[in-house]
Formats: sequence, C-alpha cells, structure tokens
Amino acid sequence: MTQNTTICATSTPAGQGGIAVIRVSGPEALAVCDKIFQPASKGKTISTQTPYTINHGQIVKDNTVLDEVIVAAFHQPHSFTGEDVVEISCHGSVYIQQEILKLLIKKGCQLARPGEFTQRAFLNGKMDLSQAEAVADVIASSSEASHRLAMNQMRGGFSKELQHLRSQLLNFVSLIELELDFGEEDVEFADRSQLIQLADDIQAIIARLAHSFSVGNVLKNGIPVVIVGETNAGKSTLLNLLLNEDRAIVSEIHGTTRDAIEDVINIQGVTFRFIDTAGIRDTSDEVEKMGINRTFKQIDRASIIIWMIDTTHFNAEIEYIADKIIPGTKRKKLIIVFNKIDKISPEEQQILEEEFLPNVPAERIYLSAKYKKNTEKLEKALLKAANLPELNTDDMIVTNLRHYEALTKALESIERVKDGLKTNLSGDFIAQDIRECMHYLGEITGEITTDEVLGEIFKKFCIGK
Amino acid sequence: MTQNTTICATSTPAGQGGIAVIRVSGPEALAVCDKIFQPASKGKTISTQTPYTINHGQIVKDNTVLDEVIVAAFHQPHSFTGEDVVEISCHGSVYIQQEILKLLIKKGCQLARPGEFTQRAFLNGKMDLSQAEAVADVIASSSEASHRLAMNQMRGGFSKELQHLRSQLLNFVSLIELELDFGEEDVEFADRSQLIQLADDIQAIIARLAHSFSVGNVLKNGIPVVIVGETNAGKSTLLNLLLNEDRAIVSEIHGTTRDAIEDVINIQGVTFRFIDTAGIRDTSDEVEKMGINRTFKQIDRASIIIWMIDTTHFNAEIEYIADKIIPGTKRKKLIIVFNKIDKISPEEQQILEEEFLPNVPAERIYLSAKYKKNTEKLEKALLKAANLPELNTDDMIVTNLRHYEALTKALESIERVKDGLKTNLSGDFIAQDIRECMHYLGEITGEITTDEVLGEIFKKFCIGK
Repeated sequence: MTQNTTICATSTPAGQGGIAVIRVSGPEALAVCDKIFQPASKGKTISTQTPYTINHGQIVKDNTVLDEVIVAAFHQPHSFTGEDVVEISCHGSVYIQQEILKLLIKKGCQLARPGEFTQRAFLNGKMDLSQAEAVADVIASSSEASHRLAMNQMRGGFSKELQHLRSQLLNFVSLIELELDFGEEDVEFADRSQLIQLADDIQAIIARLAHSFSVGNVLKNGIPVVIVGETNAGKSTLLNLLLNEDRAIVSEIHGTTRDAIEDVINIQGVTFRFIDTAGIRDTSDEVEKMGINRTFKQIDRASIIIWMIDTTHFNAEIEYIADKIIPGTKRKKLIIVFNKIDKISPEEQQILEEEFLPNVPAERIYLSAKYKKNTEKLEKALLKAANLPELNTDDMIVTNLRHYEALTKALESIERVKDGLKTNLSGDFIAQDIRECMHYLGEITGEITTDEVLGEIFKKFCIGK
Repeated sequence: MTQNTTICATSTPAGQGGIAVIRVSGPEALAVCDKIFQPASKGKTISTQTPYTINHGQIVKDNTVLDEVIVAAFHQPHSFTGEDVVEISCHGSVYIQQEILKLLIKKGCQLARPGEFTQRAFLNGKMDLSQAEAVADVIASSSEASHRLAMNQMRGGFSKELQHLRSQLLNFVSLIELELDFGEEDVEFADRSQLIQLADDIQAIIARLAHSFSVGNVLKNGIPVVIVGETNAGKSTLLNLLLNEDRAIVSEIHGTTRDAIEDVINIQGVTFRFIDTAGIRDTSDEVEKMGINRTFKQIDRASIIIWMIDTTHFNAEIEYIADKIIPGTKRKKLIIVFNKIDKISPEEQQILEEEFLPNVPAERIYLSAKYKKNTEKLEKALLKAANLPELNTDDMIVTNLRHYEALTKALESIERVKDGLKTNLSGDFIAQDIRECMHYLGEITGEITTDEVLGEIFKKFCIGK
C-alpha cells in the first residue's frame, strides 16, 4: 500500500504566526530534507539523526540562509502516516513557508493534496477509515461535546464497536453457511430461535448507532436556534452577552474577529447555532414582506425559537407576531424572553407572568440583557430545550452522514435477515443478507472502499493534515 | 534577568489547521506540562525525557483524553528564550488549543503577552534588541528583499556593525579622556588630525546606515504604485495578471483569500504596493468629484504612477487626465501603459509611439493584459522605476524607524564631535558628545533601554512569539 511519492505541506494554520510547521512524508522525506538543511552540529544530518530527536540548523537556498529551523525526524512505520516523516519548524512568515515548500518541490516533493497525510495513514494501516474521518472532525470541533465524540471516534471507539458487530455477523453467517454445506443431510447447527435472538441483538446495536445520528448531528453541527422579535427588542445585545461570556478567552488568545464566530455559542460544551432573522412586523411594504417571509423559513430550520419581547413596548405587533410564530412552534421548543425587566415594576412583571398568552406552552424568561440579569436562566432554558440525553464518555454516537447512511442500509439488511428467519427463508438468501450487512459496515471502516469514496472523504480535509 | 513566571501561548498562526504548537517557557515549564501530560511510554515524563527529544502521549483533562500530542523539551539555557521550554504539538482545532491553554493556566502558567517569548530571549541575553526586533520583521516579511534584510538583522549582522562602531567610539573617548586626566600636563596622546580622521570614519559609517533607511523602508514596506485611468482601461485585469503570475503558489498552498493579498505584488523579490484609485474623468457630479480628488491625493502618496490607456477608446477624457496627472508626476516615475494593443494595427501603434504626448518623460509600454502580451516589459519597467541600488547579501540596510531615529541622533552627536575637534573645543565637551553618540547606538542594541521602550517594541509582536 506504500506510496512512492514524497509529499509536503504546511500543517499549521494558514497565514502568519510565531512559528509554522512544514510536514514532509514519503520514501524520500529524509533524503530530500537533507538537501536543503544545514545542521548546526556539523555532520548531524536528518537521515542520520536519531529518530524522535530534534535537530537544529538552517534551511539554505542558493547559499543564502532562508531560515533557522528545528527539524524532527520520524522513521517509518512509527509516524503519523506510517512513512518516513520530517517536521520542519520554521518562523511563521508566509514568505518563509512558501519558499521552503518551493525548495522541497524543487528537490522532488509534491505538494500534498487536502487530507493526503491522513489518507496515507489510512492506506498504510495506521487507522481505519472512520478514524481517519474523525481526524477532520477533531480539527473542526468547536465545542466540548463535538470534540469528545470526534476524539472518541479518532481513538478507535467506533472501530471497536464495528469490529465487534462484524465478528458477530461472521459467526452468524458461518452457522448458516455450515447448515447449507450439510443441506442435503438436513442438519440444523443452530436452532432458529437462537438465530433470531442473535439477529435481534445485532439489529438492536445497529439501530442504536443509526438512531444516535440525530443526537450526533446536533452535537457536531450545533442546535439551530432562531431569535425572533421586533428589531429593538434587544436581540443583538442578548447575542453579544451570550457570546462574550463564553468567548472571551478565544478573542484574547487569537484575536479572532467577531465576524467569524458570530452566531455560534457554546453553553456548557453544547453548541447553539443562532440563525439571523429580520424583525417581524405587519407591513404592506413588498420588500419588507419578503424579508419577513424569509424569517418564517428560518424558523422552520430551527429547533429552538427564542421570542424576544421588549416589555416596555407592547403594541399591536405582539399579537401579529404571536399569530405568526405560535403555529410554527408545534414541533419545536419555544422560549419567550421578556427583556428590559429592569424598566418595569414587579407588579407589571407579575401581570405579564399571569396574563401573557397563558395557554401557549413555552418557557418564559424575564431578563435584562443590558444589566446582564437572569441571562444564566436563559442558558439553562436553552440547555433544557436542547433536550440532549445524558451521555457517557464511552457512548458511541454517530456524527457522520456517510456512516449514518451505511448504518441505515446495514439496518435494512439485518431486518431482512430477521424476516427471512421468521418466514423460514432459504439459508442462501439469509447468508446473502448477512454478507450485505457486513459489506455496509465494512464501508464505514474502509475495509470495503473505492477511490471515489476516498476522494470524496479526503477532499474535505484541510491541506497539511 | 531570569523571569520567575512561566508563560504559555499558541505559537502557530491563529485559527484551525492540521496541527498547532503551544509553547511554554519559564522555570516551571517542565513541571507544569508534566501535570497535564500522560506519556505513551510509562514513566517517560517531560521533566525526565532527554532534552531535544520528542515524547508521545496524551493531554488529559478531568481523566478524559483531550488530545494526542507530541512534546519536545528544551532545557535552559539552550532554548529560544534561554529558559526551560516545552513545545506541545496538538491537533490544530481551535477548541483543543484553547482547552490546553486553559489547563496550563489552571496549573500555574500565565498567558504570554505579545512578543513575550522574544522579550525573554532578549532579557536573558540570547539576542540583542535589534535582533529581537528583527524576529518580528522576519515573520512579517513578504518579499525576498525584506526577508533577506530582516534575516540578516536577526542573525546579528547589524549588531556586529554597531558593536564595531561602539568599540571605535570607546577607543576614541578613551584617548580624549586620557588627555583630560593628564590635562594639567598638557599632553596630547593623539594628534588632532588623527582624531578628526577617526571622527570622519565613524561619521561616514553612521551616515551610511542612517541614509540606508530610505531604501530599507521601501524594501520593507513596498514601493507605492498607483494605477490611474478610466475604469474600463483594464486596471483590474492587469492587477490580476501581475498577481496571478507570482502569487499562484500562495493561493494554492494556503487558500488565502484574494482580499488579503490584493494590491501587494512581488516582482523579482521586490514588493510593490498598489494603491486603489477611482477612475478619473471630467464630471460635474459632486460625489464623483470627491472620489477623483481622493485619487489625486493617492497619486501624491505613490512613487510610481501607471497611467493605463485603452488604445481602442481614445476620447476627450485623455486630455483631461493628461492635464491632471502630468503635473503630479514631476518627482515621480510615470509609466504609460497602452492596453488592448491586440485590437489595433501596427500602424496605429506606430502613430501612438510617435505622437502621444511626445514631450512627457515617461516609460511607454504597449501591452495586451487580456492576452498576457508584454506584461514582462511592464514588470521590467516597474523594477527600473523602483530604482533600487544593487544590494549585496551582507549590505547592512536599516529598515526600522526606531533605529533610524537613533542613528540620526548619533549622527548629530558625531558631527558635534567633528566640529568640536575642528574648533579646538575642550576635551570635556567632546567626550560628552562621543558618549552621547554611544548612548544612541546602545539604544538600538538594547544596552541602554527602558521598560517603556521595551513595551513599545514588543507590543507590536504577535502573541506566541
């Protein structure tokens, strides 16, 4: 399976920083890097340095020092890709990164395609396909929950579960096929009820995994939340409040721009994705109407709706909004947020609590976004509305659409097996369905795969991984 | 000088990537990292691993694996900062970077301030101040020329030159002060003409360095170029052409957005900074007039002006533009680019060559941006207009405004010394001026510095360096 080209790419995030790491992998990795590296200790080349040690020296181009670097060498098969790997830590200037890559390419490397390092790790048997896919998920994870799921999958939790399933299926199919071999003698090696029990067990596991995708998908991609209400109800103040409390350390560390992280908020490790909407009001303006219709479509995409009301500013719009929003919330969670409670009296608040749409099933939060009062209650309400099951560290949750699809097909196969057993179908057909079920599980781990599938999977990776 | 806190930061560029490197430096670096690291080989802690080797293991938080990492340890004083340093290579997820930093902070680290690692390297005597400043320049360099200058400075080229100067000045002041000690005996240890010669030599070196700033500044920040002309003259096609040829590998590697690099173009290692302008035309529209006035202001900032003319579309505007542009080009270089020559006949081109503003001193390029014809001629014309002196690899060029200012003051001091010698001023005063000159040179290398100066310098660094 070993590849015969040597690839290189910057593995650290794109752009300028203190340092950057350029990764080289393949049969010529050590030799190519030696061609551009001048060790600080004379004679201590990359090829001859002890593996897993660090070598200090210079990258030289046309007899000029391009950069002072440190270099680590990993010898195959004890590396991420399973091939010889060199990691060059250089200064994080875009120019230097570019020049070193150009030099490496000149000396015989190829620029790595997205995900090619991980793909090689898979092809060299360092990990199965579901683990390789999890590498990308680990990198993209932005909340505790999604990180934990991806990490578990990358470390082989899912693989183990699938292996276990496949060995059960193999056992199953062996029993049936043994019967077939002795078919004419009319022997039964396992009684049908035992086989049905086995099929039931396998089906239960596959079904649990397939169904976990609804939770897994939400944990990975975030729970869609929409905030509706009049424009001056305090929507953006509220969003800022939720953002700032949790995101402070990120901006401090990375100087991340608000633009990039806006609308995605982590609350106790769970990601909520806030969908932007236009303010709702009764209008005859055609353009505005289109905006409002868009808002209703966004509501459809959300699973939680926050309806923000300015308690100092009740008017006819409220009823219009109520009429428009409530029908859309039947299968969703509605949280009504009464904002600016600092401006009303306790008596007025009590009237609200008793008389505002008392028959509408909704969580009601009375807060002041400006004075940061009761925002923690809103966070609690969001977590409650998310309605996530208690997860144990070892729970296997499917987060990948490809895996979900394969599991769904495996589930169909195993259900046909059960039907077949119950209707005394010929062992031939049952064995075929079991083999089909195994095939779909094999697609997940990559035991059965095509170049096309691999291409689809790895093109979504970033370069350098 | 050793600091007693232990600092940490992500040293790789901000954001998401294949891997990220978190750097920890200070007296507790090894011990703190051991608290969060579980080695893959039992017992092989970071504190006990051989320096300059790589250790594989896991970062653990609340008994859960946060990430699988490799860790390198550098023992003081043999590290970048001169302190104990640990570099943790983790997966490049923003979440993981953040969580590892939080863990380190919880175990006693402080988040590093911008440039604090380099500042510590300076404070621990690993480099002088001009070298420390060059670290930031190396990282920010985006062209061969600016990179080479910064690299040379970082590797101590400038420091050596200044050291040499200071030792000459020290020799000088010793001679004078010796005379003073024996003042009453009226001894002359060096004859005045010899001293004047020495002052001349020193002054020449300082003057050369100070004057190199005009070149250094241009090499570092790029040569300002403005393209003027009607909107449909092909300005953006031309820019794209110049950009693509040189920048292709950048976008390939980094997926950099065009936005970020737009308008900065490297031609044979020299940076040209293209300033955007509105199209120029004779108009009575007040708003448009304001835009055009802005264009004229931009022309003032540029040192090269490219006037793009659509050769298929001569009209009255040309004369208007000529009247407006030419007066502003007296102290600048003007390049007239006749675009779309693929659409005119050779005869028409000849007429242009002979009759178009024959008395205006300008380089004239006939090209087709669309068919990429003669763009290399434009590149040559730009390099010629940049009028950069031939630079040798070892030429010391000043690129830093702070250094330039210090050199200017040092130059004034040494000129006072010369005057003093010529007018037979008392040795007291001359010695004082020499010491002042040394003081200003010492400010550059950091032998003389204040917390305020250091604060100013390092706050411009990125975090993690």
